[in-house]
Amino acid sequence: MNRRHFFKKGSLFALGTSLLQPFDSFASNDNYDATNKNKKAKNIIIVVSDGMSIGTLNMTDLYLSRATGKGSHWLELYKKNKVNRALMDMASASSIVTDSAAASSSWGGGVRIANGALNVSQNGEAHLPIWQKFKKAGKKAGCVTSVPITHATPAGFCVNSKSRNAQETIAEQYLEYKFDVMMGGGHKYFASDKRKDKKDMYQAFVSQDYQVLRTKQDMVAASNHKPILGVFDDNALPYAIDRKQNKSLAQKIPTLAEMTAKAIAAMKDHDKGFVLQVEAGKVDWAAHGNDIAGLLHDQIDHDEAIKVAMDFAEDDGETLVIITTDHGNANPGVIYGKNANTNFDAIQNYKHTNEWILNGVGKETSVSQVKERIHYANTIALTNDECQQLLDYYKNIPTANGLYNPKHLPFNLLASIQKQHNSVGWISMQHSADYVELAMYGPGSQLLKPFIKNTDLHYLMLEAAEVENAF
Amino acid sequence: MNRRHFFKKGSLFALGTSLLQPFDSFASNDNYDATNKNKKAKNIIIVVSDGMSIGTLNMTDLYLSRATGKGSHWLELYKKNKVNRALMDMASASSIVTDSAAASSSWGGGVRIANGALNVSQNGEAHLPIWQKFKKAGKKAGCVTSVPITHATPAGFCVNSKSRNAQETIAEQYLEYKFDVMMGGGHKYFASDKRKDKKDMYQAFVSQDYQVLRTKQDMVAASNHKPILGVFDDNALPYAIDRKQNKSLAQKIPTLAEMTAKAIAAMKDHDKGFVLQVEAGKVDWAAHGNDIAGLLHDQIDHDEAIKVAMDFAEDDGETLVIITTDHGNANPGVIYGKNANTNFDAIQNYKHTNEWILNGVGKETSVSQVKERIHYANTIALTNDECQQLLDYYKNIPTANGLYNPKHLPFNLLASIQKQHNSVGWISMQHSADYVELAMYGPGSQLLKPFIKNTDLHYLMLEAAEVENAF
Repeated sequence: MNRRHFFKKGSLFALGTSLLQPFDSFASNDNYDATNKNKKAKNIIIVVSDGMSIGTLNMTDLYLSRATGKGSHWLELYKKNKVNRALMDMASASSIVTDSAAASSSWGGGVRIANGALNVSQNGEAHLPIWQKFKKAGKKAGCVTSVPITHATPAGFCVNSKSRNAQETIAEQYLEYKFDVMMGGGHKYFASDKRKDKKDMYQAFVSQDYQVLRTKQDMVAASNHKPILGVFDDNALPYAIDRKQNKSLAQKIPTLAEMTAKAIAAMKDHDKGFVLQVEAGKVDWAAHGNDIAGLLHDQIDHDEAIKVAMDFAEDDGETLVIITTDHGNANPGVIYGKNANTNFDAIQNYKHTNEWILNGVGKETSVSQVKERIHYANTIALTNDECQQLLDYYKNIPTANGLYNPKHLPFNLLASIQKQHNSVGWISMQHSADYVELAMYGPGSQLLKPFIKNTDLHYLMLEAAEVENAF
Repeated sequence: MNRRHFFKKGSLFALGTSLLQPFDSFASNDNYDATNKNKKAKNIIIVVSDGMSIGTLNMTDLYLSRATGKGSHWLELYKKNKVNRALMDMASASSIVTDSAAASSSWGGGVRIANGALNVSQNGEAHLPIWQKFKKAGKKAGCVTSVPITHATPAGFCVNSKSRNAQETIAEQYLEYKFDVMMGGGHKYFASDKRKDKKDMYQAFVSQDYQVLRTKQDMVAASNHKPILGVFDDNALPYAIDRKQNKSLAQKIPTLAEMTAKAIAAMKDHDKGFVLQVEAGKVDWAAHGNDIAGLLHDQIDHDEAIKVAMDFAEDDGETLVIITTDHGNANPGVIYGKNANTNFDAIQNYKHTNEWILNGVGKETSVSQVKERIHYANTIALTNDECQQLLDYYKNIPTANGLYNPKHLPFNLLASIQKQHNSVGWISMQHSADYVELAMYGPGSQLLKPFIKNTDLHYLMLEAAEVENAF
């Protein structure tokens, strides 16, 4: 079907926005644009690094280049001129600095809403989430993530909810709409002994013919012919670097790339195609903790998932791959100084996240134990004073439970001590308003302009797949 | 002349680098790429914002959008799909974090050198600066800047020097190579009563038939048929926002856009074309001072210069416009929080830079005077404690002269106080290693790949202008 004709009749055309101009005036951005021009995206894979400031992308490429002689897969796509790029304005309806719920909703529902909600405007209006639209169009749809599968970024493509915090309800909604592959963490939102209402959501999924997977072994063994719910940890999955350092975690917990490969395998043979969201959710968590080892290694996990998606898409030829982030966080960067190179390279010796370090410290820990732990994790020698400053922080933590809440641990202080040794700085422990990096490969990527609003991406995905927005 | 044929014979071809592949395999990136493909860049204008982190570009667009309803000219080019874009790796030979001298030299000489030098490698090898190459090819060449015209960024296109600090010598080299239009600050490197050797460089320029301009009025009146040296202040020009608030400064000191327009007017009728570097040098100085009003308004000045360059280039059709920065600095961004919007918008009320504020405080200043001054400049009410903290800083400043050296003023403390009111954070007061944003318009822009090294830009400029690299 001729694309122009198709959309002239469709509701998309009536919007008259910048997303329709492409048919007439969008520049043709690549040699492959010509190839893509009249080609439909049968499949869409969107690979999101949550809370990735541009500095995180840059530092990860630099880190990999210096450690392995080869940069990131993401920037390799730029070096090989394989993608179209844009800056994307991620503001929400309530703030120039979005949260992940409003960000995912802008893509998922095509409307800017206030921070904290999922595809529900402040006047109560609900916006049909894009993975439901694609399900109605006959495609399979799924999400994989390194945080709870009920978390904001997957949820924003799948459901409506006044609050992102309603994760127990979101687990039920996933079943109601029968998403085909959902994998990540979040056991506490599915298990009867953890949920407030004591419902056994695993049993509910099984009774609807889902395979429920709890380990990497389960995932490897799972059939590609039945829907999948994979829940591999109580809350988020472990940080990549901590997983790599712990044999039992590495055996039990699949990587983001492995989940991506499984999700593709389980949906790729569907005759009407599939849509998949992949989220490196802990990049954001690491940035909130100013946790450089967590940040770089989870961004590397994201990068490996890009490779899986690209390998499939290059072979397949009918898949649009979208690579982006939902907002900046903490704007990290390597700071000028005569030891910048050696300091930054020293991060290659880090064995664990700051979360791992600080979770192993408590009121009873001694100065020498703190020193030893940080030397083991970072190969840096703290002074007694620095260790004491960290320990002082624990004196005021009210309950032992607080230790497992990142907000109760001295992340900020530890990062400021590490900064002298690794030359990495952070502007805060929060999201930033920066416009974000966006890259696209495959059919539909020729529609991308060099600057877009977050909501434009919703319509671009529909348009690329030639799914009429008439729901 | 057929481009491919031309370069097959030329020395450029022998390089065999990514810059030559374009002839065969570079993607054609735009509709206008087809138009540009066999077209030579007669003129080149490179508009550099010195030390511009991506957050500076984003915040300036956001600031303008919210203050005026219209974003920056730079991002307007993206919205209108007029340019090709890339990320550029700016590392120097000595560090992943470059200084402005090595950065400009990478573009100017086509070779990565150590921080601090200008087109001279550590083994003493000198690399012919690109504006000299273009002079040899018959073009006119010039630079305009908001910092001393002898500063690193213009100097890196024009001269060789083991040290960027040799600004008195650099002033002499500009005359030796007969650059056609050089305008900015730096009186102290030209005036006989300021130079160590007591040479009167103004007289030397006049004796070689230059027009020496010292004010905006001089500039307006100057002939376009004789070479120009314009030196409008002792060191750097004033910050844009301070200039706007001071009638006598506004009358005497031309804006970056005005200097750009004059430089174009003075060179555009040359039959072999011209090359011009425009530098918003004080964006970097503001970032070093974590000085948000300085940063945004000097970036706006840069943006106005982009408009002048683009208006000329769109009309002319034979001009390559390059828009970029030489490195990140301080990675500023707007931080998440419930008052992020109102806090960020409050910067619209700022009347002066932090430099202006702090230069007006001294050992004799009272708490209430500090409070009044900052309320006048920023419309924010400091506590007595905060004012006292600022004043305490001045007690330890050894000499009155220190007040005019930014490094002796409490910029960091003031920015951290302001952050509570404007939601803007900074990672440091130094350059960062981030890959930088680069955009191109016009003939030659089709050669740009989405990721390049700084040194690639040297060869791209020569190639776009079809100037053989055989010097």
